[in-house]
Amino acid sequence: MTTGSHRAAPEHTHPDEVSLLAALAALADPVRLTLVRELAGAADWTRSCGSFDVPVGKAALSHHFSVLRAAGLVEQRDEGPRRVNRLRRTEFDTRFPGLLDLVLREAGPLG
Amino acid sequence: MTTGSHRAAPEHTHPDEVSLLAALAALADPVRLTLVRELAGAADWTRSCGSFDVPVGKAALSHHFSVLRAAGLVEQRDEGPRRVNRLRRTEFDTRFPGLLDLVLREAGPLG
Repeated sequence: MTTGSHRAAPEHTHPDEVSLLAALAALADPVRLTLVRELAGAADWTRSCGSFDVPVGKAALSHHFSVLRAAGLVEQRDEGPRRVNRLRRTEFDTRFPGLLDLVLREAGPLG
Repeated sequence: MTTGSHRAAPEHTHPDEVSLLAALAALADPVRLTLVRELAGAADWTRSCGSFDVPVGKAALSHHFSVLRAAGLVEQRDEGPRRVNRLRRTEFDTRFPGLLDLVLREAGPLG
């Protein structure tokens, strides 16, 4: 499937289908922690992938978002040339109670 | 430093000194999850390192325990030829509330 912007639509995994190991591994990375924390502080669908201040290139960033989608943490959709994001907070909280709270409570970029 | 058994005494890190990233990474491994879960079901200092049914060799197992010590999850001491373990449940819970509960609640070897 392609979208109007001729990119493959992002594949998603619902948190209910995510293993604890996959969830922990997705969060055990400083770049992905930063993405999750920034998304938690933004309204849904307001942050595009290019709007995050993380020290990685485009391909690496794309990989990090892929891991976050596969862990049920992030949902994405294309809006014209922008791919925008939301944190799947409610669904993820239901599957892994307390895990996001813990991650978001910790201070500092390296947690 | 060496112990009476001529092995280097295990080095420990208190959970208060552990970053969230290190804690998540330590738990994001199937072998280490198994070790943590089995320790949670055993009395302190009753399980020796060789008593766990995990599909890894001696060197890999030693590495896994080293990661668990560095993450503040496991304390070890030598009793003659045996190195015995305890889960640092209370201290770890204080540092990362709810994380061990989440890990121990999940069913199945791959969580």
